[in-house]
Amino acid sequence: MSQNTNTLPVHPAILEAIRRSVDEREFNLYPRKAGVPGLVEAILEDLGLEGFDVLLTNGGIEGEYIATRSLLGPGNEVLSTDPSFLPIHDQVAMSEAKAVEVDIYRKPYVLTPEWANASITPATKMLLLIDPNNPLGSSYTRDQVRGLSDVARDRDLWLLNDVTYRDFNKGHVLASAFYPEQTLTSYSFSKGPGLAGMRIGALVAPPGGTVMKALRRFDTNVLGVNVLAQRAALAALQTKKEWLPEVRKTCELNQAAIRRAVEKVDGASLPVYPSNANMFVVDLSETGVNPETVEERLLFDHLVHTRAGSYLSRRHGGKFLRVSFTVPESDAKRFASAFPAVMETLAK
Amino acid sequence: MSQNTNTLPVHPAILEAIRRSVDEREFNLYPRKAGVPGLVEAILEDLGLEGFDVLLTNGGIEGEYIATRSLLGPGNEVLSTDPSFLPIHDQVAMSEAKAVEVDIYRKPYVLTPEWANASITPATKMLLLIDPNNPLGSSYTRDQVRGLSDVARDRDLWLLNDVTYRDFNKGHVLASAFYPEQTLTSYSFSKGPGLAGMRIGALVAPPGGTVMKALRRFDTNVLGVNVLAQRAALAALQTKKEWLPEVRKTCELNQAAIRRAVEKVDGASLPVYPSNANMFVVDLSETGVNPETVEERLLFDHLVHTRAGSYLSRRHGGKFLRVSFTVPESDAKRFASAFPAVMETLAK
Repeated sequence: MSQNTNTLPVHPAILEAIRRSVDEREFNLYPRKAGVPGLVEAILEDLGLEGFDVLLTNGGIEGEYIATRSLLGPGNEVLSTDPSFLPIHDQVAMSEAKAVEVDIYRKPYVLTPEWANASITPATKMLLLIDPNNPLGSSYTRDQVRGLSDVARDRDLWLLNDVTYRDFNKGHVLASAFYPEQTLTSYSFSKGPGLAGMRIGALVAPPGGTVMKALRRFDTNVLGVNVLAQRAALAALQTKKEWLPEVRKTCELNQAAIRRAVEKVDGASLPVYPSNANMFVVDLSETGVNPETVEERLLFDHLVHTRAGSYLSRRHGGKFLRVSFTVPESDAKRFASAFPAVMETLAK
Repeated sequence: MSQNTNTLPVHPAILEAIRRSVDEREFNLYPRKAGVPGLVEAILEDLGLEGFDVLLTNGGIEGEYIATRSLLGPGNEVLSTDPSFLPIHDQVAMSEAKAVEVDIYRKPYVLTPEWANASITPATKMLLLIDPNNPLGSSYTRDQVRGLSDVARDRDLWLLNDVTYRDFNKGHVLASAFYPEQTLTSYSFSKGPGLAGMRIGALVAPPGGTVMKALRRFDTNVLGVNVLAQRAALAALQTKKEWLPEVRKTCELNQAAIRRAVEKVDGASLPVYPSNANMFVVDLSETGVNPETVEERLLFDHLVHTRAGSYLSRRHGGKFLRVSFTVPESDAKRFASAFPAVMETLAK
């Protein structure tokens, strides 16, 4: 419950696809750079972005590495948020650019178009839109995505749309729906189908080849992406209708169980509920207890893995614990019984 | 026979390690960034570089991407060769540095310390030593490696030692033996154990942490490397004594069979024989036949895959065909019967 990974049962077709590829020794050869037949098409169909260009990557984060190296330079600013997935901000810094972190640890817990406009400067080159947001579990409405797309267009920004947690949000809206010409979509197989250890994702660019050509100048994996990961990813998309409803249902039940546990603790609260991702944050600021201590005690005394906020927020990291819930219901129940017990001990 | 891949039988322990990991759903979780237990130690033991720092990468080439981005800047020169594995030169260019290609398509078919010295300028920052060389199959003697290490030390250069084909060279000598303080070793699992489609390798840096820290500033894969690839790699190292002699033996037999076929063709020759890699080049310059045409005819008329030299040499690419031979003996025999037939047709 600490890595936003998914340990729910894996669809048998995914296992079968991996095993078949192993049996056929497909891994003896370099993977096709364009991907196993059908994979790119399946990704585009899943996104509803037919005709867009796709670069398969070693996890979604590799596409963001390539995008930031390709499109940013010294002194550029990237409009982002706090909290955020900070490894992307590290990538921004590698290009000697700077992530400007708009505080969204306050209602409505997303980057509003108004806040975005207020933080843009002449140096702004890119808008990073992580939707749903990790760690908050908040997501953007159609109007908010349209509004941010308009902001990006007005200022001629790149819009990097990280949709890693999209599968958990029934009403997800892509920025490419409004601003296809300069939106890059960062896509991952780590969360919905549970393939985090496979390290496979994709970077999706506008049709026409020009943007993809610019990105490929800095391609980190010209020899292709692990072929077993590709086979697993393709099988996951082909069977998505069979596994996704169950995954979402479990998320719903688990977050409800966690909520009931949080409600038992004076001062603990859930800023965002329900979450539209597979995680949310438990705010502890009113309890006077340090989240790092809670993380430690949950782990060492109860074998419950969570993550203190410092990994995800420079400003607010001391206030919250991130808990993810794409886990068997027994795990969520273990958290639900451990959390109030730990908090009682620490509050003494 | 076109990609230097290895389609010889895979050791059962490698298959078993992958299957066990799949059965255990290890891929649900992010890989440990430090690697599965034992893998880093096994790599260092294989190299005889105990105590060095290791970064696991998505194939050897990713380590070179990280090294070139970390250590090179605008105007820097990298001393390299022609022929060479040109995708690394592309990486050099990404940092606005320049690969200086010393002509080694002439005896002794390696970069001698004298040639290296003659091509160094004040802008030289790195020496790229691919040993054994792809595509020539030539390798460096102990004296040559020591000599190049001395050159690098005298000029305070980084030495990037690409040892992708090391398994095929019984007498291989690492540059780290002479110049540990500024040598980076690029290591791959693609060739010897046949894991090209797994995309796993490593970048090995001097002990002490300082160099690795500089490299990690530009790490492309902070969330780790595919866990099935790691399991396969570990099993490959653990069983290396069992599979390597057989692989080398096949290489010996296959290249002898190919040589006999080349000798039948007027004007065709093998600049380097025997090869200390799993490939060599067939020189066609005296035949008047274009290697690209030979590649096409071998493929379309005989289903034999080879690669024309233009992929590996700007200057000499029009002169040779690269043929690799970590393939079943039946494949080598198919080449041996097809090549003279194709050449006879084209020479008419």
